[in-house]
Amino acid sequence: MTVDAHILAAFRNAEGGAVSGEDLATRLQISRAAIWARIEELRQLGYEIEASPHEGYRLKKCPDLLHADDLLARLDGKQLIGRDIRVFKETTSTNDAVERVARDGEAEGVVVFAETQTKGRGRLGRRWISPPGRGLWFSILLRPNISPQSITQITVASAVSLRRAIKTVTGLVAEIKWPNDLMLNGLKIAGILTELSSEPDAVKHVVLGIGVDVNLTSEDIPEELRNVATSLRIVTGRKLDRAALAIQILREIDRAYASIQEGMFEELSNEWASGCATIGKDVTIEMGGRLLQGRVEALDQDGALLLRTEHGRLERVIAGDVRIHPS
Amino acid sequence: MTVDAHILAAFRNAEGGAVSGEDLATRLQISRAAIWARIEELRQLGYEIEASPHEGYRLKKCPDLLHADDLLARLDGKQLIGRDIRVFKETTSTNDAVERVARDGEAEGVVVFAETQTKGRGRLGRRWISPPGRGLWFSILLRPNISPQSITQITVASAVSLRRAIKTVTGLVAEIKWPNDLMLNGLKIAGILTELSSEPDAVKHVVLGIGVDVNLTSEDIPEELRNVATSLRIVTGRKLDRAALAIQILREIDRAYASIQEGMFEELSNEWASGCATIGKDVTIEMGGRLLQGRVEALDQDGALLLRTEHGRLERVIAGDVRIHPS
Repeated sequence: MTVDAHILAAFRNAEGGAVSGEDLATRLQISRAAIWARIEELRQLGYEIEASPHEGYRLKKCPDLLHADDLLARLDGKQLIGRDIRVFKETTSTNDAVERVARDGEAEGVVVFAETQTKGRGRLGRRWISPPGRGLWFSILLRPNISPQSITQITVASAVSLRRAIKTVTGLVAEIKWPNDLMLNGLKIAGILTELSSEPDAVKHVVLGIGVDVNLTSEDIPEELRNVATSLRIVTGRKLDRAALAIQILREIDRAYASIQEGMFEELSNEWASGCATIGKDVTIEMGGRLLQGRVEALDQDGALLLRTEHGRLERVIAGDVRIHPS
Repeated sequence: MTVDAHILAAFRNAEGGAVSGEDLATRLQISRAAIWARIEELRQLGYEIEASPHEGYRLKKCPDLLHADDLLARLDGKQLIGRDIRVFKETTSTNDAVERVARDGEAEGVVVFAETQTKGRGRLGRRWISPPGRGLWFSILLRPNISPQSITQITVASAVSLRRAIKTVTGLVAEIKWPNDLMLNGLKIAGILTELSSEPDAVKHVVLGIGVDVNLTSEDIPEELRNVATSLRIVTGRKLDRAALAIQILREIDRAYASIQEGMFEELSNEWASGCATIGKDVTIEMGGRLLQGRVEALDQDGALLLRTEHGRLERVIAGDVRIHPS
C-alpha cells in the first residue's frame, strides 16, 4: 500500500474520528512533515480534511472521484480482482487499456478505471456513452483456466456479481437481459463487454469490461437513448458513492470468478436464471444476420441460451441480440 | 507498387532477357538516373544485375532473401492475402507483429515475414526455432466472417494450402497431423499457430502464423528436436527458393480463405481428411490435462476431430496434443 492508501485507511478505521499525525508518522516510519505534505495533496484532490493541533486530522468529506490508492485501501488485500488498480482521468476505452496491460504479460487481477472514455465500446463495436465522473467505466484482466468455448461463463458470472452489488448498495433488484445487460424498469443500467484472446483450445487472456450508469442525469443521456438507458441516480433520485459501489462490485466479481475457476458455475447459473428477464420468454434473437424465434428454456453449462424454436427444435445460442416479445 | 516492385516485375517478365533503362524510366515517369539509383540499391541487397550500354539491364541472380516489393510484384494484384507485405529482418514473433497491426485497425490481408524470430512461438506458448534466412516465418491478418467456434476451419484451410504449395514447389506430398502440423517421413516440416481475438459471438481478428522449415540444415535443428523436426532441404537434398515457396503458399491461402468465407469449407475438409495422418488412427489426445483414447473417425464442419472413444462414445475435440499409436 502507498502512504496515501495507509492514510485513507486510517481515516476510514477512525470512522469520522481524529487520526494523530504523530501516530501516522510513527506507523509509516516517515516524518510528520511528510504526512502533512500527503494530507495537502489529498486536499488538492478534493478530500476535506480538518486539522486540529491537539487531536490530529479528521476526514470530513471525500471527493466524488475514483482514487486508486483509496480503492486499494478499501479492498481485502487477499483479493485477486483489484490486486492492482489504475485510474485514468481519460482513456479511449478501458478494454483497450487492459488489453495493453495483458500484452505486457501482467498477471490477472489488474483493474483499470477511467473517469471518462473517448471511445467507450459496447458489444460488436457499438458506442458506449461514458460522461466524466458520472459512472463506473472499468475493465479487468483475467487469465481463466477454462476453454474458449466456456467464455460466456465469465459474462454470466459478471452479470450476477453486478446484480448482487447493486442490490447491496442501492437495495434495487436489477433484471438480467441475456447475455450482457442489467436492466431497471426495462431500461439498461449496466453492460458487460467480454473480449477474448485465445488459441483454438486455450484462453490466453480475457478483458472483462464493465460500464455502470451510476450518477448520470437524464441530460447526460443522449436523447435517442433515453427510452433505452437510465441510471441508478435517475431511478433512486439520489447521487451515489461511486467508489463504494466499485468496491462492492470488485468483491462480488472476485468471489464469482473464484467459483468459476473451481468449476462451480452451476450455482451462479441458477442465480442468473432466477434474475433473468429472458428465461421463459418468447423472443427473437438476431445472431450474425440470422433471425431465430422461440421461447428461451434455460442456460447451459457454458452460459449459452437454449432456445426452443417455433419448429420445436432446441437451439443453442452463444450470443446475439435478444428482443423480448411483449407477453 | 513501388518503383522496386516495378523494376523486379519487369525483370521477371523479361525472363532473363534485357530490360531497357529508358523504357523503365518512361513507363515509371522518373529519370534514367533514378532508375540507375534503384538498380544500385537492388545490387546492394544482393541482386546480381548486369548492365550493358546498348541492351539495358539484365537480372542474373536473386539473393536468398525475402524482399517485400519483390514478393508483391510476384503476386496477383487482386489477391487479398498479401495485398500488403512487410518483411522484418528480425522480430520477436511475427504473430506479435501482426497483432499490433490488427490493433491499429488495419484491414485483413496484411502479411508480415521475418528473416528470424527471437521469440518464435508454437501452440500453447511452446518455442519455435526460426534461424535467420533458413525458413519462412510469417503471419497473416484475417478478419473472417465466421463464428469464434469455427476458428479451427482457418487452421484446417491453412494446412491444406501449405500441403498444396509444398507439393507444387517440391513435388513432395506432406502428411497432415491434426490440428496444426505438416509432416514428411514422420517428422515435422511446418506448423500453424492460429490466434483469435473475439467477443463471445464475433471474431474481431485472427492472426494466422505459419512456420515452414525450408532450408534448415540438420545443424540448424537443435539436437533434442532432430527426431521430431526436419526441413525441405534435408528431405530433398537441395536448397529451395524461399520466395517462390512463399508466393505459392500465399496464393493457396488466398484461394482457401475465399472458400471458407463463401461457406465452402466442406471441399477443404475432404482434401484435409485425404491428406491426414490422423484420421482412422488409434490415438491418445491430451486436452487441457485430460487424456482421451480412441479412434479418429472424421472432421466435423467446424474443423473439430470426432473421436470414437474406448467406451464407444463419439467425442468432439477442438484441439489438443495427438499421439498416434503405432499400428
